[in-house]
Amino acid sequence: MLAGVGISLEIQSESRHEIVGIVKEVGSNVSRFKVGDHVGVGTYVNSCKECGYCFRIPDDYPSALAAPLLCAGITVYNSMMRRGMNQPGKSLGVIGLGDLGHMAVKFGKAFGLKITVFRTSISKKEEALSVLGADNFVVCSDQEQMKAVSKSLDFIIDTSSGDHPFDPYMSLLKTAGVLVLVAFPSEVKFSPANLNLGMKSISGRITGGMRVTQEMLDFCAAHKIFPKIELIPIQHVNEALERLINKDVRYRFVIDIENSLK
Amino acid sequence: MLAGVGISLEIQSESRHEIVGIVKEVGSNVSRFKVGDHVGVGTYVNSCKECGYCFRIPDDYPSALAAPLLCAGITVYNSMMRRGMNQPGKSLGVIGLGDLGHMAVKFGKAFGLKITVFRTSISKKEEALSVLGADNFVVCSDQEQMKAVSKSLDFIIDTSSGDHPFDPYMSLLKTAGVLVLVAFPSEVKFSPANLNLGMKSISGRITGGMRVTQEMLDFCAAHKIFPKIELIPIQHVNEALERLINKDVRYRFVIDIENSLK
Repeated sequence: MLAGVGISLEIQSESRHEIVGIVKEVGSNVSRFKVGDHVGVGTYVNSCKECGYCFRIPDDYPSALAAPLLCAGITVYNSMMRRGMNQPGKSLGVIGLGDLGHMAVKFGKAFGLKITVFRTSISKKEEALSVLGADNFVVCSDQEQMKAVSKSLDFIIDTSSGDHPFDPYMSLLKTAGVLVLVAFPSEVKFSPANLNLGMKSISGRITGGMRVTQEMLDFCAAHKIFPKIELIPIQHVNEALERLINKDVRYRFVIDIENSLK
Repeated sequence: MLAGVGISLEIQSESRHEIVGIVKEVGSNVSRFKVGDHVGVGTYVNSCKECGYCFRIPDDYPSALAAPLLCAGITVYNSMMRRGMNQPGKSLGVIGLGDLGHMAVKFGKAFGLKITVFRTSISKKEEALSVLGADNFVVCSDQEQMKAVSKSLDFIIDTSSGDHPFDPYMSLLKTAGVLVLVAFPSEVKFSPANLNLGMKSISGRITGGMRVTQEMLDFCAAHKIFPKIELIPIQHVNEALERLINKDVRYRFVIDIENSLK
Protein backbone atom coordinates (compact mmCIF):
# COMPACT_ATOMS: atom_id res chain seq x y z
CA MET A 1 0.00 0.00 0.00
CA LEU A 2 1.53 3.31 -1.09
CA ALA A 3 1.22 6.67 0.74
CA GLY A 4 -0.54 9.41 -1.21
CA VAL A 5 2.61 10.89 -2.73
CA GLY A 6 4.59 7.65 -2.98
CA ILE A 7 5.89 6.09 -6.17
CA SER A 8 7.07 2.51 -6.53
CA LEU A 9 9.71 1.81 -9.19
CA GLU A 10 10.72 -1.16 -11.25
CA ILE A 11 14.44 -0.45 -11.20
CA GLN A 12 16.18 -0.84 -14.54
CA SER A 13 19.63 0.69 -14.09
CA GLU A 14 21.83 1.85 -11.29
CA SER A 15 25.11 3.80 -11.43
CA ARG A 16 26.65 3.96 -7.95
CA HIS A 17 23.45 4.94 -6.16
CA GLU A 18 21.58 6.78 -8.89
CA ILE A 19 18.55 4.84 -10.02
CA VAL A 20 16.51 4.77 -13.23
CA GLY A 21 13.34 2.76 -13.76
CA ILE A 22 9.68 2.54 -14.69
CA VAL A 23 6.82 3.62 -12.40
CA LYS A 24 4.99 0.48 -11.18
CA GLU A 25 2.50 2.05 -8.80
CA VAL A 26 1.62 5.57 -7.61
CA GLY A 27 -0.05 6.96 -4.49
CA SER A 28 -3.47 8.59 -4.65
CA ASN A 29 -2.16 12.19 -4.60
CA VAL A 30 0.52 11.77 -7.28
CA SER A 31 -0.36 13.82 -10.33
CA ARG A 32 2.97 14.31 -12.13
CA PHE A 33 3.67 10.64 -12.76
CA LYS A 34 1.66 7.65 -13.85
CA VAL A 35 2.30 3.92 -14.02
CA GLY A 36 4.64 3.13 -16.89
CA ASP A 37 6.49 6.49 -16.83
CA HIS A 38 10.26 6.47 -17.26
CA VAL A 39 11.86 8.22 -14.28
CA GLY A 40 15.08 8.73 -12.34
CA VAL A 41 16.12 9.22 -8.74
CA GLY A 42 19.26 11.29 -8.13
CA THR A 43 21.93 11.10 -5.49
CA TYR A 44 19.81 12.55 -2.71
CA VAL A 45 19.53 10.57 0.47
CA ASN A 46 17.70 13.14 2.52
CA SER A 47 15.19 15.65 1.25
CA CYS A 48 12.58 18.12 2.45
CA LYS A 49 9.95 15.38 2.18
CA GLU A 50 7.55 17.93 0.77
CA CYS A 51 8.43 18.18 -2.89
CA GLY A 52 8.39 15.38 -5.41
CA TYR A 53 11.59 13.38 -5.79
CA CYS A 54 11.62 11.81 -9.22
CA PHE A 55 12.96 13.25 -12.49
CA ARG A 56 11.20 12.39 -15.70
CA ILE A 57 13.60 10.75 -18.18
CA PRO A 58 12.90 11.66 -21.82
CA ASP A 59 11.15 8.66 -23.37
CA ASP A 60 13.77 7.74 -25.94
CA TYR A 61 16.75 8.17 -23.60
CA PRO A 62 18.20 4.73 -22.69
CA SER A 63 17.89 3.92 -18.99
CA ALA A 64 21.44 2.66 -18.64
CA LEU A 65 22.83 5.91 -20.06
CA ALA A 66 20.49 8.09 -18.02
CA ALA A 67 21.68 6.79 -14.64
CA PRO A 68 25.12 8.52 -14.58
CA LEU A 69 23.49 11.80 -15.63
CA LEU A 70 21.95 12.01 -12.16
CA CYS A 71 25.36 12.40 -10.52
CA ALA A 72 28.26 13.07 -12.91
CA GLY A 73 26.02 14.74 -15.47
CA ILE A 74 24.16 17.10 -13.16
CA THR A 75 27.30 18.04 -11.20
CA VAL A 76 29.05 19.14 -14.37
CA TYR A 77 26.02 20.69 -16.08
CA ASN A 78 24.96 22.67 -13.01
CA SER A 79 28.50 24.01 -12.50
CA MET A 80 28.72 25.08 -16.10
CA MET A 81 25.30 26.76 -16.21
CA ARG A 82 25.75 28.58 -12.88
CA ARG A 83 29.05 30.10 -13.93
CA GLY A 84 28.04 31.09 -17.46
CA MET A 85 30.05 28.40 -19.23
CA ASN A 86 27.40 28.02 -21.91
CA GLN A 87 28.61 30.99 -23.96
CA PRO A 88 29.73 29.86 -27.44
CA GLY A 89 33.30 30.77 -28.30
CA LYS A 90 34.57 30.88 -24.72
CA SER A 91 37.44 28.62 -23.71
CA LEU A 92 37.14 25.83 -21.16
CA GLY A 93 39.85 23.77 -19.49
CA VAL A 94 38.84 20.35 -18.19
CA ILE A 95 41.17 18.82 -15.59
CA GLY A 96 40.85 15.05 -15.57
CA LEU A 97 39.03 12.80 -18.00
CA GLY A 98 36.96 10.43 -15.91
CA ASP A 99 33.20 10.21 -15.42
CA LEU A 100 32.81 13.94 -14.73
CA GLY A 101 35.56 15.14 -17.09
CA HIS A 102 34.24 13.36 -20.16
CA MET A 103 30.77 14.80 -19.50
CA ALA A 104 32.33 18.29 -19.22
CA VAL A 105 33.82 17.83 -22.69
CA LYS A 106 30.50 16.65 -24.09
CA PHE A 107 28.53 19.53 -22.56
CA GLY A 108 31.26 21.99 -23.57
CA LYS A 109 31.03 20.86 -27.19
CA ALA A 110 27.25 21.26 -27.12
CA PHE A 111 27.67 24.79 -25.70
CA GLY A 112 30.13 25.74 -28.47
CA LEU A 113 33.17 26.10 -26.21
CA LYS A 114 36.82 25.65 -27.17
CA ILE A 115 38.01 22.83 -24.96
CA THR A 116 41.43 21.94 -23.60
CA VAL A 117 41.76 18.70 -21.64
CA PHE A 118 44.46 18.44 -18.95
CA ARG A 119 45.74 15.07 -17.79
CA THR A 120 48.76 13.78 -15.90
CA SER A 121 49.51 11.29 -18.69
CA ILE A 122 49.17 11.27 -22.47
CA SER A 123 47.21 7.98 -22.42
CA LYS A 124 43.76 9.33 -23.32
CA LYS A 125 44.93 11.99 -25.82
CA GLU A 126 43.50 10.29 -28.89
CA GLU A 127 40.22 9.59 -27.15
CA ALA A 128 39.96 13.20 -25.94
CA LEU A 129 40.64 14.70 -29.36
CA SER A 130 39.17 12.22 -31.83
CA VAL A 131 36.36 10.54 -29.93
CA LEU A 132 35.18 13.28 -27.55
CA GLY A 133 36.10 16.15 -29.86
CA ALA A 134 38.24 18.28 -27.52
CA ASP A 135 40.26 20.99 -29.32
CA ASN A 136 43.48 20.62 -27.36
CA PHE A 137 45.17 18.15 -25.00
CA VAL A 138 47.81 19.16 -22.47
CA VAL A 139 49.95 16.90 -20.30
CA CYS A 140 50.02 19.02 -17.14
CA SER A 141 53.54 18.00 -16.11
CA ASP A 142 54.91 19.39 -19.40
CA GLN A 143 55.81 23.00 -18.62
CA GLU A 144 56.14 23.97 -22.27
CA GLN A 145 52.62 22.74 -23.02
CA MET A 146 51.27 24.51 -19.93
CA LYS A 147 53.03 27.76 -20.86
CA ALA A 148 51.52 27.62 -24.33
CA VAL A 149 48.03 27.95 -22.88
CA SER A 150 48.89 30.60 -20.26
CA LYS A 151 46.10 33.13 -19.65
CA SER A 152 44.02 31.56 -22.41
CA LEU A 153 41.07 30.06 -20.52
CA ASP A 154 37.81 31.70 -19.48
CA PHE A 155 36.85 28.73 -17.32
CA ILE A 156 38.29 25.59 -15.81
CA ILE A 157 36.37 22.61 -14.48
CA ASP A 158 38.54 20.66 -12.12
CA THR A 159 37.32 17.06 -11.88
CA SER A 160 40.46 15.60 -10.35
CA SER A 161 40.24 14.19 -6.83
CA GLY A 162 43.93 13.31 -6.85
CA ASP A 163 46.10 15.83 -5.00
CA HIS A 164 47.42 18.43 -7.40
CA PRO A 165 48.74 22.00 -7.33
CA PHE A 166 46.28 24.78 -8.13
CA ASP A 167 48.68 27.65 -8.90
CA PRO A 168 49.70 26.33 -12.35
CA TYR A 169 46.04 26.14 -13.38
CA MET A 170 45.09 29.53 -11.90
CA SER A 171 47.71 31.13 -14.10
CA LEU A 172 46.03 29.67 -17.19
CA LEU A 173 42.88 31.70 -16.51
CA LYS A 174 42.23 35.02 -18.19
CA THR A 175 41.32 38.08 -16.10
CA ALA A 176 38.09 37.37 -14.16
CA GLY A 177 38.44 33.67 -15.01
CA VAL A 178 36.69 31.03 -12.92
CA LEU A 179 37.83 27.61 -11.76
CA VAL A 180 35.04 25.34 -10.54
CA LEU A 181 36.07 22.42 -8.39
CA VAL A 182 33.75 19.41 -8.59
CA ALA A 183 36.10 16.93 -6.94
CA PHE A 184 37.59 16.18 -3.53
CA PRO A 185 41.38 16.35 -3.41
CA SER A 186 42.66 16.39 0.18
CA GLU A 187 43.11 20.18 0.10
CA VAL A 188 42.94 23.28 -2.06
CA LYS A 189 46.04 25.48 -1.78
CA PHE A 190 47.23 28.41 -3.86
CA SER A 191 48.94 31.76 -3.72
CA PRO A 192 46.67 34.79 -3.14
CA ALA A 193 48.42 36.61 -5.98
CA ASN A 194 47.05 34.03 -8.41
CA LEU A 195 43.56 34.95 -7.25
CA ASN A 196 43.82 38.70 -6.56
CA LEU A 197 45.88 39.84 -9.53
CA GLY A 198 43.30 39.14 -12.20
CA MET A 199 40.02 39.08 -10.27
CA LYS A 200 39.81 35.30 -10.43
CA SER A 201 37.45 32.98 -8.56
CA ILE A 202 37.34 29.42 -7.32
CA SER A 203 33.90 27.93 -6.80
CA GLY A 204 32.79 24.52 -5.61
CA ARG A 205 29.73 22.56 -6.52
CA ILE A 206 28.26 19.06 -6.50
CA THR A 207 24.98 17.78 -7.95
CA GLY A 208 22.06 20.19 -8.45
CA GLY A 209 18.40 20.70 -7.59
CA MET A 210 15.31 19.14 -9.16
CA ARG A 211 14.67 21.83 -11.74
CA VAL A 212 18.16 22.01 -13.18
CA THR A 213 18.37 18.19 -13.16
CA GLN A 214 15.25 18.01 -15.30
CA GLU A 215 16.67 20.75 -17.56
CA MET A 216 19.91 18.75 -17.91
CA LEU A 217 18.05 15.54 -18.78
CA ASP A 218 16.05 17.36 -21.46
CA PHE A 219 19.22 19.04 -22.77
CA CYS A 220 21.00 15.68 -23.06
CA ALA A 221 18.06 14.17 -24.94
CA ALA A 222 17.75 17.17 -27.29
CA HIS A 223 21.49 17.29 -28.07
CA LYS A 224 22.01 13.54 -28.05
CA ILE A 225 24.57 13.73 -25.25
CA PHE A 226 25.22 10.28 -23.83
CA PRO A 227 27.74 9.37 -21.16
CA LYS A 228 30.10 6.56 -22.08
CA ILE A 229 29.47 3.64 -19.76
CA GLU A 230 30.18 -0.03 -19.17
CA LEU A 231 26.96 -1.92 -18.56
CA ILE A 232 27.43 -4.89 -16.24
CA PRO A 233 25.15 -7.53 -14.70
CA ILE A 234 25.03 -7.30 -10.92
CA GLN A 235 26.94 -10.57 -10.70
CA HIS A 236 30.06 -8.77 -11.96
CA VAL A 237 29.98 -6.04 -9.34
CA ASN A 238 33.01 -7.24 -7.37
CA GLU A 239 35.20 -7.31 -10.45
CA ALA A 240 33.87 -3.85 -11.35
CA LEU A 241 34.73 -2.47 -7.93
CA GLU A 242 38.26 -3.76 -8.30
CA ARG A 243 38.59 -2.11 -11.71
CA LEU A 244 37.09 1.10 -10.28
CA ILE A 245 39.83 1.22 -7.63
CA ASN A 246 42.40 0.84 -10.42
CA LYS A 247 40.65 3.62 -12.39
CA ASP A 248 40.06 1.11 -15.17
CA VAL A 249 36.63 2.21 -16.40
CA ARG A 250 35.39 4.35 -19.28
CA TYR A 251 33.73 6.15 -17.68
CA ARG A 252 31.21 4.74 -15.29
CA PHE A 253 29.91 1.27 -14.50
CA VAL A 254 26.14 0.95 -14.69
CA ILE A 255 24.45 -2.10 -13.20
CA ASP A 256 21.79 -3.59 -15.43
CA ILE A 257 19.29 -4.47 -12.70
CA GLU A 258 16.52 -5.45 -15.08
CA ASN A 259 18.49 -8.16 -16.86
CA SER A 260 20.52 -9.20 -13.81
CA LEU A 261 17.43 -10.48 -12.06
CA LYS A 262 15.92 -12.43 -14.94
CA MET B 1 55.82 72.13 -21.99
CA LEU B 2 53.03 69.56 -21.68
CA ALA B 3 52.05 66.98 -24.31
CA GLY B 4 48.54 67.28 -25.70
CA VAL B 5 46.91 64.92 -23.23
CA GLY B 6 49.20 65.69 -20.29
CA ILE B 7 48.10 67.15 -16.96
CA SER B 8 50.40 68.69 -14.39
CA LEU B 9 49.32 68.52 -10.74
CA GLU B 10 49.93 70.56 -7.65
CA ILE B 11 50.01 67.61 -5.23
CA GLN B 12 48.10 68.11 -2.00
CA SER B 13 47.91 64.71 -0.36
CA GLU B 14 49.50 61.34 -0.75
CA SER B 15 48.59 58.03 0.90
CA ARG B 16 51.26 55.44 0.14
CA HIS B 17 51.43 56.20 -3.58
CA GLU B 18 47.93 57.48 -4.26
CA ILE B 19 47.95 61.16 -5.07
CA VAL B 20 45.35 63.92 -4.81
CA GLY B 21 45.85 67.48 -6.00
CA ILE B 22 44.78 70.45 -8.10
CA VAL B 23 45.30 70.69 -11.88
CA LYS B 24 48.03 73.30 -12.55
CA GLU B 25 48.35 72.98 -16.30
CA VAL B 26 46.72 70.92 -19.08
CA GLY B 27 47.83 69.86 -22.57
CA SER B 28 46.11 71.18 -25.65
CA ASN B 29 43.93 68.10 -26.24
CA VAL B 30 42.68 67.73 -22.69
CA SER B 31 38.96 68.33 -22.56
CA ARG B 32 37.82 66.57 -19.35
CA PHE B 33 39.88 68.66 -16.96
CA LYS B 34 40.80 72.31 -16.60
CA VAL B 35 43.28 74.23 -14.47
CA GLY B 36 42.04 74.37 -10.88
CA ASP B 37 40.10 71.06 -10.97
CA HIS B 38 40.35 68.75 -7.96
CA VAL B 39 41.61 65.35 -9.13
CA GLY B 40 43.13 62.07 -8.01
CA VAL B 41 45.61 59.54 -9.39
CA GLY B 42 45.16 55.94 -8.30
CA THR B 43 47.61 53.14 -7.69
CA TYR B 44 48.32 52.47 -11.36
CA VAL B 45 51.90 52.50 -12.50
CA ASN B 46 51.34 51.22 -16.01
CA SER B 47 48.33 51.89 -18.17
CA CYS B 48 47.12 51.55 -21.74
CA LYS B 49 48.35 55.11 -22.43
CA GLU B 50 45.23 55.76 -24.45
CA CYS B 51 42.60 56.60 -21.89
CA GLY B 52 42.71 59.43 -19.40
CA TYR B 53 44.28 58.70 -16.04
CA CYS B 54 42.84 61.13 -13.52
CA PHE B 55 39.71 60.77 -11.40
CA ARG B 56 37.67 63.85 -10.61
CA ILE B 57 37.30 64.32 -6.82
CA PRO B 58 33.92 65.76 -5.79
CA ASP B 59 34.52 69.43 -4.97
CA ASP B 60 33.67 69.34 -1.30
CA TYR B 61 35.53 66.12 -0.56
CA PRO B 62 38.71 66.86 1.48
CA SER B 63 41.91 65.98 -0.39
CA ALA B 64 43.51 64.25 2.56
CA LEU B 65 40.53 61.94 2.95
CA ALA B 66 40.22 61.31 -0.77
CA ALA B 67 43.72 59.88 -1.15
CA PRO B 68 43.12 56.50 0.60
CA LEU B 69 39.94 56.01 -1.42
CA LEU B 70 42.10 55.43 -4.48
CA CYS B 71 43.56 52.23 -3.02
CA ALA B 72 41.80 50.91 0.10
CA GLY B 73 38.47 52.45 -0.89
CA ILE B 74 38.32 51.26 -4.47
CA THR B 75 39.60 47.77 -3.63
CA VAL B 76 36.82 47.26 -1.11
CA TYR B 77 34.08 49.05 -3.08
CA ASN B 78 34.84 47.22 -6.33
CA SER B 79 34.87 43.83 -4.58
CA MET B 80 31.54 44.55 -2.95
CA MET B 81 29.85 45.82 -6.10
CA ARG B 82 31.14 43.01 -8.32
CA ARG B 83 29.86 40.32 -5.98
CA GLY B 84 26.46 41.88 -5.26
CA MET B 85 27.25 42.96 -1.71
CA ASN B 86 25.13 46.08 -2.05
CA GLN B 87 21.83 44.31 -1.33
CA PRO B 88 20.23 45.73 1.82
CA GLY B 89 19.53 43.16 4.52
CA LYS B 90 22.27 40.72 3.48
CA SER B 91 24.94 39.79 5.99
CA LEU B 92 28.62 40.63 5.58
CA GLY B 93 31.61 39.39 7.55
CA VAL B 94 34.69 41.63 7.57
CA ILE B 95 37.94 39.92 8.53
CA GLY B 96 40.43 42.46 9.91
CA LEU B 97 39.86 46.09 10.80
CA GLY B 98 42.65 48.04 9.18
CA ASP B 99 42.58 50.47 6.27
CA LEU B 100 40.55 48.13 4.04
CA GLY B 101 38.46 46.56 6.80
CA HIS B 102 37.18 49.82 8.22
CA MET B 103 36.18 50.96 4.71
CA ALA B 104 34.31 47.66 4.23
CA VAL B 105 32.30 48.41 7.38
CA LYS B 106 31.56 51.96 6.19
CA PHE B 107 30.46 50.83 2.71
CA GLY B 108 28.51 47.94 4.21
CA LYS B 109 26.58 50.32 6.45
CA ALA B 110 25.80 52.55 3.47
CA PHE B 111 24.56 49.50 1.53
CA GLY B 112 22.29 48.45 4.42
CA LEU B 113 24.14 45.25 5.27
CA LYS B 114 24.27 43.50 8.64
CA ILE B 115 27.95 43.51 9.54
CA THR B 116 30.05 41.21 11.69
CA VAL B 117 33.69 42.17 12.26
CA PHE B 118 36.23 39.40 12.91
CA ARG B 119 39.52 40.14 14.65
CA THR B 120 42.21 38.13 16.39
CA SER B 121 41.92 40.33 19.50
CA ILE B 122 39.14 42.16 21.28
CA SER B 123 41.04 45.48 21.19
CA LYS B 124 38.97 47.33 18.58
CA LYS B 125 35.58 45.97 19.65
CA GLU B 126 34.23 49.25 20.97
CA GLU B 127 35.46 51.13 17.93
CA ALA B 128 33.92 48.57 15.56
CA LEU B 129 30.51 48.64 17.24
CA SER B 130 30.15 52.20 18.54
CA VAL B 131 32.21 54.30 16.17
CA LEU B 132 31.97 52.37 12.88
CA GLY B 133 28.52 50.96 13.58
CA ALA B 134 29.13 47.25 13.00
CA ASP B 135 26.34 45.00 14.28
CA ASN B 136 28.49 42.26 15.75
CA PHE B 137 32.10 41.66 16.76
CA VAL B 138 33.71 38.22 16.92
CA VAL B 139 37.11 37.26 18.29
CA CYS B 140 38.02 34.59 15.77
CA SER B 141 39.98 32.43 18.24
CA ASP B 142 36.85 32.07 20.39
CA GLN B 143 35.16 28.91 19.11
CA GLU B 144 31.90 29.62 20.89
CA GLN B 145 31.65 33.03 19.23
CA MET B 146 32.53 31.53 15.85
CA LYS B 147 29.95 28.76 16.27
CA ALA B 148 27.27 31.32 17.08
CA VAL B 149 27.60 32.82 13.58
CA SER B 150 27.90 29.50 11.71
CA LYS B 151 26.23 29.53 8.26
CA SER B 152 24.93 33.06 8.88
CA LEU B 153 26.86 35.13 6.35
CA ASP B 154 26.04 35.87 2.71
CA PHE B 155 29.47 37.42 2.11
CA ILE B 156 32.87 37.75 3.68
CA ILE B 157 35.53 40.31 2.82
CA ASP B 158 38.88 39.07 3.98
CA THR B 159 41.27 42.01 4.47
CA SER B 160 43.83 40.17 6.58
CA SER B 161 47.32 39.71 5.14
CA GLY B 162 48.44 37.81 8.22
CA ASP B 163 48.45 34.03 7.77
CA HIS B 164 45.16 32.57 8.92
CA PRO B 165 43.05 29.45 8.33
CA PHE B 166 40.24 29.70 5.79
CA ASP B 167 38.14 26.67 6.74
CA PRO B 168 36.64 28.26 9.89
CA TYR B 169 35.45 31.24 7.82
CA MET B 170 34.15 29.15 4.91
CA SER B 171 31.86 27.35 7.33
CA LEU B 172 30.31 30.68 8.36
CA LEU B 173 29.00 31.22 4.83
CA LYS B 174 25.47 30.32 3.85
CA THR B 175 24.83 28.15 0.78
CA ALA B 176 26.24 29.91 -2.31
CA GLY B 177 28.12 32.32 -0.06
CA VAL B 178 31.15 34.24 -1.34
CA LEU B 179 34.44 35.09 0.32
CA VAL B 180 36.42 37.84 -1.42
CA LEU B 181 40.08 38.05 -0.58
CA VAL B 182 41.58 41.53 -0.90
CA ALA B 183 44.79 40.81 1.00
CA PHE B 184 47.99 38.85 0.60
CA PRO B 185 48.55 36.17 3.23
CA SER B 186 51.34 33.79 2.23
CA GLU B 187 48.85 31.18 1.02
CA VAL B 188 45.19 30.29 0.74
CA LYS B 189 44.41 26.77 1.93
CA PHE B 190 41.11 25.04 2.68
CA SER B 191 39.25 21.77 2.44
CA PRO B 192 37.32 21.16 -0.81
CA ALA B 193 34.31 20.06 1.23
CA ASN B 194 34.03 23.60 2.60
CA LEU B 195 33.74 24.84 -0.97
CA ASN B 196 31.79 22.07 -2.73
CA LEU B 197 29.16 21.26 -0.11
CA GLY B 198 27.28 24.54 -0.28
CA MET B 199 28.24 25.94 -3.68
CA LYS B 200 30.61 28.49 -2.17
CA SER B 201 33.17 30.67 -3.90
CA ILE B 202 36.41 32.43 -3.15
CA SER B 203 37.27 35.41 -5.32
CA GLY B 204 40.23 37.75 -5.33
CA ARG B 205 40.40 41.39 -6.26
CA ILE B 206 42.49 44.50 -5.85
CA THR B 207 41.79 48.09 -6.98
CA GLY B 208 39.38 48.76 -9.85
CA GLY B 209 39.13 50.51 -13.21
CA MET B 210 38.55 54.20 -13.97
CA ARG B 211 34.78 54.06 -14.20
CA VAL B 212 34.15 52.23 -10.94
CA THR B 213 36.72 54.43 -9.19
CA GLN B 214 34.82 57.54 -10.25
CA GLU B 215 31.55 55.86 -9.17
CA MET B 216 33.10 55.08 -5.75
CA LEU B 217 34.32 58.68 -5.29
CA ASP B 218 30.86 60.02 -6.09
CA PHE B 219 29.25 57.43 -3.79
CA CYS B 220 31.54 58.44 -0.90
CA ALA B 221 30.72 62.11 -1.41
CA ALA B 222 26.97 61.47 -1.65
CA HIS B 223 26.89 59.24 1.45
CA LYS B 224 29.48 61.20 3.42
CA ILE B 225 31.76 58.19 3.69
CA PHE B 226 35.20 59.27 4.86
CA PRO B 227 38.15 57.02 5.68
CA LYS B 228 39.69 57.57 9.09
CA ILE B 229 43.24 58.80 8.61
CA GLU B 230 46.20 60.34 10.38
CA LEU B 231 47.45 63.36 8.48
CA ILE B 232 51.18 63.90 8.87
CA PRO B 233 53.72 66.36 7.49
CA ILE B 234 56.32 64.69 5.30
CA GLN B 235 58.94 65.36 7.97
CA HIS B 236 57.28 62.71 10.17
CA VAL B 237 57.41 60.00 7.56
CA ASN B 238 60.08 57.88 9.24
CA GLU B 239 58.19 57.76 12.52
CA ALA B 240 55.01 56.93 10.58
CA LEU B 241 56.74 54.05 8.79
CA GLU B 242 57.84 52.63 12.11
CA ARG B 243 54.30 52.87 13.48
CA LEU B 244 53.00 51.28 10.26
CA ILE B 245 55.25 48.27 10.81
CA ASN B 246 53.84 47.99 14.35
CA LYS B 247 50.30 48.25 12.92
CA ASP B 248 49.83 51.37 15.02
CA VAL B 249 47.72 53.50 12.69
CA ARG B 250 43.97 54.22 12.41
CA TYR B 251 43.71 53.53 9.59
CA ARG B 252 46.02 55.07 7.06
CA PHE B 253 48.73 57.73 7.15
CA VAL B 254 48.25 60.51 4.62
CA ILE B 255 51.12 62.87 3.87
CA ASP B 256 50.08 66.50 3.76
CA ILE B 257 52.30 67.53 0.86
CA GLU B 258 50.81 71.00 0.50
CA ASN B 259 51.61 72.10 4.05
CA SER B 260 54.81 70.08 4.34
CA LEU B 261 56.53 72.18 1.71
CA LYS B 262 55.48 75.59 2.98
